[in-house]
Amino acid sequence: MKAQQVRNKEYGFTRTIDAAFDEVVERTREALKQEGFGVLSEIRMDEKLKEKLGVDFRRYVILGACNPPLAYRTLQEDLNIGLMLPCNVIVYEADDKARSVVAAIDPIEMMSVVGNPAINLVATEVHAQLQKVIEQI
Amino acid sequence: MKAQQVRNKEYGFTRTIDAAFDEVVERTREALKQEGFGVLSEIRMDEKLKEKLGVDFRRYVILGACNPPLAYRTLQEDLNIGLMLPCNVIVYEADDKARSVVAAIDPIEMMSVVGNPAINLVATEVHAQLQKVIEQI
Repeated sequence: MKAQQVRNKEYGFTRTIDAAFDEVVERTREALKQEGFGVLSEIRMDEKLKEKLGVDFRRYVILGACNPPLAYRTLQEDLNIGLMLPCNVIVYEADDKARSVVAAIDPIEMMSVVGNPAINLVATEVHAQLQKVIEQI
Repeated sequence: MKAQQVRNKEYGFTRTIDAAFDEVVERTREALKQEGFGVLSEIRMDEKLKEKLGVDFRRYVILGACNPPLAYRTLQEDLNIGLMLPCNVIVYEADDKARSVVAAIDPIEMMSVVGNPAINLVATEVHAQLQKVIEQI
């Protein structure tokens, strides 16, 4: 639960949690809700890979998280910003299935390719919120 | 339908089409399918903004497009790459509602923040495929 457990990777924040996949997914949903994010999409990558390629893959979900007022602000700045929305939060089984990894995209890194200062400002807010989400799980 | 109609913006390819929203969404789905992409998520931003904020917004959809073999390759390179998947393709009403704008993320730009040469290689493939999608619509 301590902030120092959060590792800031190149393009996201990652944490390994001592709990199984389903529980971490639930805790992630709850933490997102607490911080004002809705989950607009949900993709079970393992199920899709099984269905399309017939391969077995560790349980892996991509949640599309969105803070509606902030998304609205970015859309008013740049109508094409939907290309970058929502913010992905992923949960997957660790090699040891008793543990799970949760990670959130770093919106500052992601939005840097847009090169719009007003959007960078929103990204900084979302960055702080997503960091809180990962710390709370 | 001509390649020169495709404008390569900073972080995506954009095209304005002389057809209404619903038709362009259908043509986009068809073009994605033709190029080997599945649509893994679908977010109607206008409906979400209405529901969450009570605001009226032009019709706007975010389609999450995924080429399963290429997604699998990137996941084997970097387990956290789900933070960047799927590739967004958006369709929204132009100011003149008889026309619609379609845009696809530029995966080379987006994946550049990851800094993994093997993933950049896949991004180059996806880039060519998404450009074809936008040209075909």
